[in-house]
Amino acid sequence: MKIKAFAPGKIILFGEHTVVYNKPAIAVAINRGVDVELTSRDDDEVNIHISPINYSQKLVLTGGMLEYEYDSSNKRISDYIYEVINRFKFNHGFNLNVNINMYLGAGLGSSAAVTVAVLKAIMLYTDNDATLDEIASIARDIEIKIQGAASPIDTAMSTYGGIIYIDENSNLNPINFDMQLPLIVSNCEIAGNTGEIVASVRDKYNKHTPIMESIFDAMAKIATDAKMALECGNSMKLAELMNMNQGLLDAIGVNTLELSEMVYQSRKFGSEGSKLTGSGGGGCIIAYAPHDIDEVYLKLSQLYKTFKCEQSNSGVYAKIVEK
Amino acid sequence: MKIKAFAPGKIILFGEHTVVYNKPAIAVAINRGVDVELTSRDDDEVNIHISPINYSQKLVLTGGMLEYEYDSSNKRISDYIYEVINRFKFNHGFNLNVNINMYLGAGLGSSAAVTVAVLKAIMLYTDNDATLDEIASIARDIEIKIQGAASPIDTAMSTYGGIIYIDENSNLNPINFDMQLPLIVSNCEIAGNTGEIVASVRDKYNKHTPIMESIFDAMAKIATDAKMALECGNSMKLAELMNMNQGLLDAIGVNTLELSEMVYQSRKFGSEGSKLTGSGGGGCIIAYAPHDIDEVYLKLSQLYKTFKCEQSNSGVYAKIVEK
Repeated sequence: MKIKAFAPGKIILFGEHTVVYNKPAIAVAINRGVDVELTSRDDDEVNIHISPINYSQKLVLTGGMLEYEYDSSNKRISDYIYEVINRFKFNHGFNLNVNINMYLGAGLGSSAAVTVAVLKAIMLYTDNDATLDEIASIARDIEIKIQGAASPIDTAMSTYGGIIYIDENSNLNPINFDMQLPLIVSNCEIAGNTGEIVASVRDKYNKHTPIMESIFDAMAKIATDAKMALECGNSMKLAELMNMNQGLLDAIGVNTLELSEMVYQSRKFGSEGSKLTGSGGGGCIIAYAPHDIDEVYLKLSQLYKTFKCEQSNSGVYAKIVEK
Repeated sequence: MKIKAFAPGKIILFGEHTVVYNKPAIAVAINRGVDVELTSRDDDEVNIHISPINYSQKLVLTGGMLEYEYDSSNKRISDYIYEVINRFKFNHGFNLNVNINMYLGAGLGSSAAVTVAVLKAIMLYTDNDATLDEIASIARDIEIKIQGAASPIDTAMSTYGGIIYIDENSNLNPINFDMQLPLIVSNCEIAGNTGEIVASVRDKYNKHTPIMESIFDAMAKIATDAKMALECGNSMKLAELMNMNQGLLDAIGVNTLELSEMVYQSRKFGSEGSKLTGSGGGGCIIAYAPHDIDEVYLKLSQLYKTFKCEQSNSGVYAKIVEK
C-alpha cells in the first residue's frame, strides 16, 4: 500500500505578537508545505527519511509499537514524527518519506505541517478515522509536548487550510475569500528566537504600557480592516495595511536590519505591500504584488532565498495511491 | 567693523509629522549651524559669499538699499539672505561671509539658521535693536515668503536655542535639561520632498483615519514621555522611545530603504536609540549613544556623511569683534 499526504504551511498576514494580547490576527495556509509518502512493508521495519535535510533512520516495531523515548535536550524536526508514530499500533512496518517543501524554523509552521501530514497519513494506514478537529487537537498536543508551549494557529492552519481570522476571543473564523492571494516569501536565513522575542515585547509592554496599548490598538484595527479588505477583494487596501503593520512591528522592536532591507527591496521591486511574518528577529518577509508578482519574485529571488505561493484553500489530506 | 554671528540648526527629536495634527513634539537646537562674518566697507558694495557651496555675488546699494526682486521660480539658499538685506537701509556696503556648517536641505533647518544668523548680524550692523521674539517673527515671515508655508519651529530653534517641547496648542515650552545630549547625525544624501511627504501622510490619514489616530496617539504619548525622560535624565528611556517612534514613522510611510539601513546600522554599532529626523523620504537620521558615542560615530562616519553634535543651549548671537 502506498499513501500520499500533504499539509500546508502557513504565514501570518496580520497580527503576529498582538494575538498574544487577545487582538485579532489573520493567518493564511499556503500551497507550500509538507508532502508525505508512506509505503507499507511486510516486516517490522520503520524507515524514516526527511528531505531536504537528509535525515534517515531505521527502527523496528516491537509488538506493533515503536520503542522510543522523547529526548527534550535535543529538539529536532524528527521528534514530531516519532511522537506521532508513538501514538499508534501497527500490524506491519512502513517506509515514511517526509518532504519539507518550505523553510524550516522560519515562522512558516513547518513543525505543525510535518506533524499534521504524518498524522493524517498514519491514520489512513492504521484505519483510524478522525475528524479534522481531532487531528488539530492531537497535533497541538504534540507541539506543546515538544515545544513547551504552542499557539493553536499553526496546527489549525495545517489541518483546516484557508484564510482564518482569529478574533479577540481566540476563535478561529474562516474568511470568505474566493480569489487567489499570490504571495512571495523571502527568507533572511537568520533564525529568530521566538521565545526571546515574545519576552522582549512583553518587557516593552510592561515598561511602556500606554504607548504599546495605542500601537496594539492600531494593529488590531489593521487586522479588522484587512478582514474586510479580503472579503471585498480590495487588494490595494490590503497592501497598504501590510505596510502599516510592518512599521508597527518595527516600533515594538521585532524588526531587524536584514528584514527591513528585504521589505524595502521588495517595495523597490514593485511590491505594493510587504512585511515581516511571524515573530520576527529573523525568519521571513512576505511581499504582496498583485500587479506584477513575477517581476518582484524574480528580483527578490536573485538576492534572497525566495518562493512564490498562494493560499491553500484545502487543509491536510491523504489518499491511497496504490492498494 | 567686523561682526560675527551664529545661529544653531535643529533636529526634531520626536513628533515630526504628528506636530501638524496638533500632537506634541520635541525639537533640539544643535551646536552646528550657520556662522556669519560681516565686515563693513567704505563704499556701496555688498559682497556675499556662501560656503561650502561656493556662491559669490557682488551687488551695489542704491540709496542705501539693495535693488533686488525675489524670483520664486528658482529657490536658492541665497534668497533668504537677500530677503533679510532687503528689509534694511545701510549707510555703507559690507562683505558677508556665510558658512553653513551643517547639511543643506536635509531637515536640519539650514534655511532658518541662515536667515536668523544673517538677520542678527545685520541688525547689529545697522544698530537695530530687536528682541528675540521679533527676530523669530521676521525670520518666519521670510521663510513663509520663500517657501510658501513654514513651521515656526525651525526659526524658533535657531533664534532661542535649547530643547523645546511643542505642546498640543502649538506653544513652545523650553525643557529644563541641564546635561549634555550628545547626538550623531548621518545624512543619506537623498533629499526628501517635504511637501509631497506631508501630503502622502495626509492621504493615509484620510484613508485610514482610525488606524492613523491610534498611531498618532502612540506618537503623542512618546513625545510626552520623552519630555519627562529628558527632565529626569533617563537616557535609556529616551533611547527606547526614539526606537519606537522610528517604527511609527515607518508605519506612516515616511521611512526609506536608505534611512532604515542607517538606523539599523547605527543600532548594530551600539547606538541605544536611533530614528529618522524631519519629514523623512530622505535626509538624516539621528543616533543616540550615551554610552559609546565615539565608537558609533566612527563606524557610521565610515559609511555615511556624519557629524557629532550636542544641544545648543544658546540661540542666535552676534558680537562686534573689531570696532
